[in-house]
Amino acid sequence: MVPISEHNKTHLEKIGLPPGSLKFTGRKKNEKVKVIVIDYRDADFEENEVLTISKLETYKESATSSWINVDGLHDVEILSEIGEIFGIHSLVIEDILNVNHRPILEEYDDFLFFTLKMLVIDEKNLIQSEQVSMILGKNWLLTFQETEGDLFDKIRIRLRDTQAKIRKRNVDYLFYALIDIIVDNYFLVIENFKEAIESIEDKVMLHSDKKYLIEMQKVRKDLLDFRKTLVPLREALIDLRLEKTTLISNKTTPYINDLHDHTLYLNESTEFLQESLNNILDTYHSGIANKTNQIMQILTIYNVIFMPLMFIVGVYGMNFDNMPEIHTKYGYYVVLGVMLIIVLSLLRYFKYKKWL
Amino acid sequence: MVPISEHNKTHLEKIGLPPGSLKFTGRKKNEKVKVIVIDYRDADFEENEVLTISKLETYKESATSSWINVDGLHDVEILSEIGEIFGIHSLVIEDILNVNHRPILEEYDDFLFFTLKMLVIDEKNLIQSEQVSMILGKNWLLTFQETEGDLFDKIRIRLRDTQAKIRKRNVDYLFYALIDIIVDNYFLVIENFKEAIESIEDKVMLHSDKKYLIEMQKVRKDLLDFRKTLVPLREALIDLRLEKTTLISNKTTPYINDLHDHTLYLNESTEFLQESLNNILDTYHSGIANKTNQIMQILTIYNVIFMPLMFIVGVYGMNFDNMPEIHTKYGYYVVLGVMLIIVLSLLRYFKYKKWL
Amino acid sequence: MVPISEHNKTHLEKIGLPPGSLKFTGRKKNEKVKVIVIDYRDADFEENEVLTISKLETYKESATSSWINVDGLHDVEILSEIGEIFGIHSLVIEDILNVNHRPILEEYDDFLFFTLKMLVIDEKNLIQSEQVSMILGKNWLLTFQETEGDLFDKIRIRLRDTQAKIRKRNVDYLFYALIDIIVDNYFLVIENFKEAIESIEDKVMLHSDKKYLIEMQKVRKDLLDFRKTLVPLREALIDLRLEKTTLISNKTTPYINDLHDHTLYLNESTEFLQESLNNILDTYHSGIANKTNQIMQILTIYNVIFMPLMFIVGVYGMNFDNMPEIHTKYGYYVVLGVMLIIVLSLLRYFKYKKWL
Amino acid sequence: MVPISEHNKTHLEKIGLPPGSLKFTGRKKNEKVKVIVIDYRDADFEENEVLTISKLETYKESATSSWINVDGLHDVEILSEIGEIFGIHSLVIEDILNVNHRPILEEYDDFLFFTLKMLVIDEKNLIQSEQVSMILGKNWLLTFQETEGDLFDKIRIRLRDTQAKIRKRNVDYLFYALIDIIVDNYFLVIENFKEAIESIEDKVMLHSDKKYLIEMQKVRKDLLDFRKTLVPLREALIDLRLEKTTLISNKTTPYINDLHDHTLYLNESTEFLQESLNNILDTYHSGIANKTNQIMQILTIYNVIFMPLMFIVGVYGMNFDNMPEIHTKYGYYVVLGVMLIIVLSLLRYFKYKKWL
Amino acid sequence: MVPISEHNKTHLEKIGLPPGSLKFTGRKKNEKVKVIVIDYRDADFEENEVLTISKLETYKESATSSWINVDGLHDVEILSEIGEIFGIHSLVIEDILNVNHRPILEEYDDFLFFTLKMLVIDEKNLIQSEQVSMILGKNWLLTFQETEGDLFDKIRIRLRDTQAKIRKRNVDYLFYALIDIIVDNYFLVIENFKEAIESIEDKVMLHSDKKYLIEMQKVRKDLLDFRKTLVPLREALIDLRLEKTTLISNKTTPYINDLHDHTLYLNESTEFLQESLNNILDTYHSGIANKTNQIMQILTIYNVIFMPLMFIVGVYGMNFDNMPEIHTKYGYYVVLGVMLIIVLSLLRYFKYKKWL
Repeated sequence: MVPISEHNKTHLEKIGLPPGSLKFTGRKKNEKVKVIVIDYRDADFEENEVLTISKLETYKESATSSWINVDGLHDVEILSEIGEIFGIHSLVIEDILNVNHRPILEEYDDFLFFTLKMLVIDEKNLIQSEQVSMILGKNWLLTFQETEGDLFDKIRIRLRDTQAKIRKRNVDYLFYALIDIIVDNYFLVIENFKEAIESIEDKVMLHSDKKYLIEMQKVRKDLLDFRKTLVPLREALIDLRLEKTTLISNKTTPYINDLHDHTLYLNESTEFLQESLNNILDTYHSGIANKTNQIMQILTIYNVIFMPLMFIVGVYGMNFDNMPEIHTKYGYYVVLGVMLIIVLSLLRYFKYKKWL
Repeated sequence: MVPISEHNKTHLEKIGLPPGSLKFTGRKKNEKVKVIVIDYRDADFEENEVLTISKLETYKESATSSWINVDGLHDVEILSEIGEIFGIHSLVIEDILNVNHRPILEEYDDFLFFTLKMLVIDEKNLIQSEQVSMILGKNWLLTFQETEGDLFDKIRIRLRDTQAKIRKRNVDYLFYALIDIIVDNYFLVIENFKEAIESIEDKVMLHSDKKYLIEMQKVRKDLLDFRKTLVPLREALIDLRLEKTTLISNKTTPYINDLHDHTLYLNESTEFLQESLNNILDTYHSGIANKTNQIMQILTIYNVIFMPLMFIVGVYGMNFDNMPEIHTKYGYYVVLGVMLIIVLSLLRYFKYKKWL
Repeated sequence: MVPISEHNKTHLEKIGLPPGSLKFTGRKKNEKVKVIVIDYRDADFEENEVLTISKLETYKESATSSWINVDGLHDVEILSEIGEIFGIHSLVIEDILNVNHRPILEEYDDFLFFTLKMLVIDEKNLIQSEQVSMILGKNWLLTFQETEGDLFDKIRIRLRDTQAKIRKRNVDYLFYALIDIIVDNYFLVIENFKEAIESIEDKVMLHSDKKYLIEMQKVRKDLLDFRKTLVPLREALIDLRLEKTTLISNKTTPYINDLHDHTLYLNESTEFLQESLNNILDTYHSGIANKTNQIMQILTIYNVIFMPLMFIVGVYGMNFDNMPEIHTKYGYYVVLGVMLIIVLSLLRYFKYKKWL
Repeated sequence: MVPISEHNKTHLEKIGLPPGSLKFTGRKKNEKVKVIVIDYRDADFEENEVLTISKLETYKESATSSWINVDGLHDVEILSEIGEIFGIHSLVIEDILNVNHRPILEEYDDFLFFTLKMLVIDEKNLIQSEQVSMILGKNWLLTFQETEGDLFDKIRIRLRDTQAKIRKRNVDYLFYALIDIIVDNYFLVIENFKEAIESIEDKVMLHSDKKYLIEMQKVRKDLLDFRKTLVPLREALIDLRLEKTTLISNKTTPYINDLHDHTLYLNESTEFLQESLNNILDTYHSGIANKTNQIMQILTIYNVIFMPLMFIVGVYGMNFDNMPEIHTKYGYYVVLGVMLIIVLSLLRYFKYKKWL
Repeated sequence: MVPISEHNKTHLEKIGLPPGSLKFTGRKKNEKVKVIVIDYRDADFEENEVLTISKLETYKESATSSWINVDGLHDVEILSEIGEIFGIHSLVIEDILNVNHRPILEEYDDFLFFTLKMLVIDEKNLIQSEQVSMILGKNWLLTFQETEGDLFDKIRIRLRDTQAKIRKRNVDYLFYALIDIIVDNYFLVIENFKEAIESIEDKVMLHSDKKYLIEMQKVRKDLLDFRKTLVPLREALIDLRLEKTTLISNKTTPYINDLHDHTLYLNESTEFLQESLNNILDTYHSGIANKTNQIMQILTIYNVIFMPLMFIVGVYGMNFDNMPEIHTKYGYYVVLGVMLIIVLSLLRYFKYKKWL
């Protein structure tokens, strides 16, 4: 999860620069910016790496569907060149470069701009977040990623298949398919949270240890971060639904509705998980209170049993001259017996009171 | 209650498949998909099992009302065949196959799609959830269930009766009647929750045992699950009310309003139950605090009584040569008497202070 | 307050019956259904008990204002006969028979249907709830009660007075007047709650006893029940305000606004009471915590004072041969004196620390 | 702050009376109803007490601006006479007489009715609440107060000044000016709350005494009361802003907006204060928990130090024949020394653990 | 952060004055009011201090863009003179003079009025707040500050650069640029809060000290203050977005949207920080409960170990004549051994129970 301070740092670095000045705000994640174009239309299919940016011009007006994917955002020059070719406002390029931008949909005259987080769970079971931006034009789709994403490979494989439905559709369907695969991965993240929470719940049910509380707080924080990504995404998808743009055809609209439905479900699940965390916290606090009670009970039982005994032995430890019991033959044994009876009666009483 | 992970698993299995690809996401619950058609109109009534799906074509355009009920969702082939006959979008079929879909109403050009949960309480007093989908066309109604539901049998019995009101009405009234019988069963679920909560309340009033807290958390979780089913259902029914479709006649509209009213009532009852659970939690926590207090009180009383006694017997256990009291004849008895007076005074004081 | 389960039971009994089938859901509260018609217009006034239902037909179309009050709902036959005469939808009759229906306003072509709870505080200071339904037609008003209500008698007395404003107005004003008298009684209920809460508050301020908590929970539950009646009533009155029906004349509209204003005030008062209960709960919990503190303090003071004393007497109870102090003449008295000084110093210290 | 029950009592007294029947609901606060008219227009200015109500008729249609202020509401006759002269609905007069009415704005054909609370802090630092009602007509403004208010005197002084802006404006500006001076006084009330809360905060920071909790609850209650006055006032001012009435000229509109802005600010400040109270409550509870901890710590340290000592002296108090240490010359001193070492080590340990 | 009372004090001083009367409500922060005009248009650029206010008249109608910056608000005369020249309503001037005004956007016929807080973190790491007001006219922009701000210097530097984008744009872009630089600084404030909260979190994780709670409450208060500034600012920016004014050109609109987006992000971050504080509070309370538990545990272990030992030595301290064990040769050593075994067994038991 990208920590909150990242965005601020971006701003700190940029305060004083004129608005709209381009500066990459992430860490440089791969060596070279890689631009790959997939150009397709029914039977035709072409996949090339573009080395000279100016060649992209040909794809802008062509009748075929073109997907131009840019891996790596650190070369500001390349991005602004692409921006100029496709007629993109400098503020949009600035938003693409800002890897901590909140998910948003913006409609411009000739294109739609959509940015969201791609969340992937790595080998260490941590959530890795990457900013993905998309610009949907008439027959072209620009996508921008920080690193070469393997998530999009699944789409590439489908695109290469001549029979695939995706080949028969326009670029707006591709636009949908890419968002869909990203949103589908959010279910994995939710699943991950769910497992973490259930594991904590099981442990807290047994024992209220402070380290579980710290784990809980960590998960709660991550969940909050996740929700901060999810809520604006849902809003952006509502905007996409309501957008009366010609860029998205009627045939693709039901898929967009479906996407929106998924984010609704994700959102409800997140709220469910937060509610679960609250319940675990209740259990935790109650566990601590119970433990205090139990300790107190032991202490009290001990005192209640031993105090009268110690009083009795104290009495016969007194040095009075005239204490007839002391001089009887079986006095000692009688006292021991009396104490035994006291102990047994008290134990019975505690058993009756269900303290033991 | 279907656990949250189910939906995710569905997605996990499907990530990478093209959107709209059909895959059944539930467990196979019965052997064979069973398709039963009830065709009726005033005096006419026919009830048949359909073995060849293509024969359903005849019911699509017929002037009679046709109810086609499909039990079992695991045969994807059959479902997509039905979809083709009735002109249903593949995303709708996908939603029908997804047994963990949230309740929803969707309007298409020629039909309404409605999906909801059928909740039934089984012999073990557990809530069993089943996905039911309905597609309402002009003169036909398609319903899809995971298993052969006995809930719909009540409607079938009414349909077979020539005099029944339901026979004189169109298929939109049947559509309403089926939803109504499902929603009516939700009242049983609420009743079930209510009994569970009241039983916990009674126990917690007497004793704040941790196991009751765990029971409480379980009920709270189930209630949350129930609400997750109820809230989108209410939204779907609001959509149904507002839908300006010709598929639902003016004569049926008041019944739909009535249905919506029921879900409002159900929702308010659920909130009431959640509020009750919060109150019980308060009682629980207060019970623990009271118990701690009580234990502390016993411990304190014991200490307050025995400490002075033990001090006194300690004094007369000292070995000083010159302790005149020790050599008096009745010193021992005087000391015993003094201690008795101390004990009695302290007991009286505690009684006065209402600690005993 | 009607317990929540009542409504469910109604549904349990009715599951399987066709929707709109008439069944009385309350307990039979009086012997015979009693139908009384008050027919008035300026100087004319007539008050009769109607024994043959079919005679009601004459009041439907007459130019005079007619108030037909039905006491007792258990005779389903009579009600459905009335329904037929006045052209009332069977679902409305079903709602009238359901004594646990939530307050609602429904507009039909020829009449308005309004149902609400009449709350009366009985001799035992308990809130008695009764369902009252009203149907306002062009020149007639139907009212349905479970028992003969004495609340409406006040209106009857005013109606009998030839000079009364109510006689000069149409039946829509009577409709308002009846609702107004019911809503006015809600203020008594609020007052009742307020007294109960203040009495608990006074007790909790003095002493945090668990029985007060249980009282609190009871009031909270009742208040929740009351609010469940109030909230839909307010919504119904908003609907009534916004209703562009010709059944309610412009002259009566300001009165309806006034009514709505009363429910707003009632609602705010209820929230105020709930907030008060929360504050009392805080006081309660803090009282328990304080008590624990106090007990602990006593225990600690006792230990701090007696432990050093017991140590000292223990020292001089040792049997060493060579303990010179023991053989001094005033050793015993010196030790007693030292212990006295210790006690006095500790007491002084506790006083200084404000523990005593 | 007017206690909540007042309103109810008003209703209790009035149940059964026909709606719109006039009855004063406050306590009679001054001897005689006093009606003062200020009539002004540019250079002209006249200020008279009106003894015969019927003379007010002349002011209704005159072209000059007339402010008719009525002090005292207990003479129902006078009020209904005024009502008749200015054509005011009897429900409005009823609302004026109800000194516990919530703030409201109502638009009638010929006038605006506005009622709000005038809050003044008295010498004992208590908030005194008074109902003020205003009726704004074309060239006249009626104001109704329970007692002769000194708050309005400031406006009178400004009116008497020929040069004052208020003289050049119409009566709608006067209407605004009166509301403004009342709302300005609310800032004093907020300031009063703020001081009370800060004083409690300072005390709670030092010491969690139960009496501070009770103070806190009191302030919270008063704040709730204040908010119950403020919230409807803000709503009424929103209504006033949106009102498309010709009674308020465009020149006065910015002032109304400004007023609304003030209530927004007041509302935010109230929320801020409530949040502060919640924080203080947290501090309070935490203070109690800390105190318990501290007491427990003292008790534990005492036990840990004295128990081993008492065990040791107990050992050498045993009467075994064969206890060689007892007969050594320095055995007693060695034991005393060992005990001293134990005490010092424990003290050091506690210091290291930061318990001391 | 400006304390809440400031606003009130402003009002206290002004109660009784006619609305719209001009009075400066801040503390006089600099010696002399300084008016600097920057007049620019493409290649032309002029920067002058204006000593005679009336000279400003020339800038009002000129075709060049003019930025008139006023440092210092204490000279009411100068401000009202400026107001007259530019045709500004006296209420606006009053709002400019009120240094505690909440952020607001108001549209007038010829200009837009915008006021907000400039937040700067000083050397002591405290947040300094300053009121900034702006009035945007056709070709002119008025800005009002309490002191000479160094934040605006960055804009001045950009303006002096002939090549800068800002020079080629109209005055509405300058308006945006100034707001942008102020809002950018809010990110620094958020960063500051974040560091403070994380530092508290780290400390509370280790130790639940009351002083951390007090720190927490302080941060919470400041955050609340910050939010009170932020929320109305966001609302004002929404108004600015929706404003259909010709004063802001289409070219500048995307920048305004971007600004609004920043405030959304800021708001979400603030909520995130508040949530974090709540979590820390949970950790804090749980830390205290754990500590109590731990202390109780030590106390209990001590009692459980020493009480049986003290009982045993007490037994052999009794003075009975007939106690055979006492006279055996190794009795003493056997008893010591038995006690050792008891201690070891108990220690083992506690280790097994994980209390040690």
